[in-house]
Amino acid sequence: MNKEEFLSMVDHTILKADAMEEDVKKVIQFAKENKCASVCINPYYVKLAKEMLKETDVKVCTVIGFPLGQNTTKVKVYEAKSAAEDGADEIDMVINVAALKDKKYDYVYDEIKKIKDATDKLLKVIIENAYLTSEERKVVCEICVKAKVDFVKTSTGFAKTGAIVSEVREMKEVVKDMAKIKAAGGISKMSDVIDLYNAGAVRFGLSRTESILKEFEEEI
Amino acid sequence: MNKEEFLSMVDHTILKADAMEEDVKKVIQFAKENKCASVCINPYYVKLAKEMLKETDVKVCTVIGFPLGQNTTKVKVYEAKSAAEDGADEIDMVINVAALKDKKYDYVYDEIKKIKDATDKLLKVIIENAYLTSEERKVVCEICVKAKVDFVKTSTGFAKTGAIVSEVREMKEVVKDMAKIKAAGGISKMSDVIDLYNAGAVRFGLSRTESILKEFEEEI
Repeated sequence: MNKEEFLSMVDHTILKADAMEEDVKKVIQFAKENKCASVCINPYYVKLAKEMLKETDVKVCTVIGFPLGQNTTKVKVYEAKSAAEDGADEIDMVINVAALKDKKYDYVYDEIKKIKDATDKLLKVIIENAYLTSEERKVVCEICVKAKVDFVKTSTGFAKTGAIVSEVREMKEVVKDMAKIKAAGGISKMSDVIDLYNAGAVRFGLSRTESILKEFEEEI
Repeated sequence: MNKEEFLSMVDHTILKADAMEEDVKKVIQFAKENKCASVCINPYYVKLAKEMLKETDVKVCTVIGFPLGQNTTKVKVYEAKSAAEDGADEIDMVINVAALKDKKYDYVYDEIKKIKDATDKLLKVIIENAYLTSEERKVVCEICVKAKVDFVKTSTGFAKTGAIVSEVREMKEVVKDMAKIKAAGGISKMSDVIDLYNAGAVRFGLSRTESILKEFEEEI
């Protein structure tokens, strides 16, 4: 993997509650200059990102029902539509973890499907591995394949654990080539990226893109 | 403060992403049997709580834009309206912390005011002290008073710090008797409750109500 290949798989991310406009602008500018896949920001900043990234190929990615996913389906659908209207190209939604753990699989599927159908945007489904057993991970990946989502995503970055190689492997076994995998949460160095890539991830949610990029540059 | 007085000030709370229905039902049942002020649950569980608490005086409290507050105003307003329709009696909304720190005070006020005007429910505004300076805390409390909200609330319980006595005192200095104060986040024992009460808080967001109640009972 070279530097350009790496960057083309990065959702350069800032999602902190207290991320001020100046910091968010820097993150967007970095994504723009380095041709990242996207910049991933909270809904409040979607319009700003769209404005700064117009006439570029860098996508605007935002998060829905984030990070707990315990909103109603109705509100998540509304938030997704509203984000698309504001200029989001990619939607990272959080599943209803509680409903999944309660085996309400129809509810979980129905919610994902409704959000998918609400816009024509690329959809990534955050399954929040930190709370899931292997069996639950398998079931929700099957649900995601059935709903024909674009990506299954490991984590919000706000739970106890983030992207874990063995869990990405488990996800890959289920989704095969029917959905892609985004690894996110706690990824801090080049070797993490390589390991997760080898396990099946082809998109990376990173706040530490800059320091990882330096590692790639030193490597060459 | 006796046991009944204590319970009448408690929003008995469960807001974890993976709170399963059985656990949430237990929390609601506890609030019902012990005559808490309210049960505070995620929007996904509002209908369930309303059903279980009908014909009681225990209120259904839910959270909006929770816990990051970085949704758009439009979506927060929609979520508040939707929660009220589902049966919420009390709305705990998270401010846009980033906007506050960027000194966009009109934005912060406008958002609070719109959510207040969207329903006739009791409104608590979570200012998330963990991210604020004393000056920012003062400003947002003034904004809350201007918007005539019912309560100013210290924390979501999802940031680095929760309810802190000295910060409640600072809030009380600004809101005086023009708004009430709810302390939430990390409150684990009776002495915390007493100290926060003496600092000016008259509502408490607690997940550990049961163990604190035991302390009150042993005290008598």
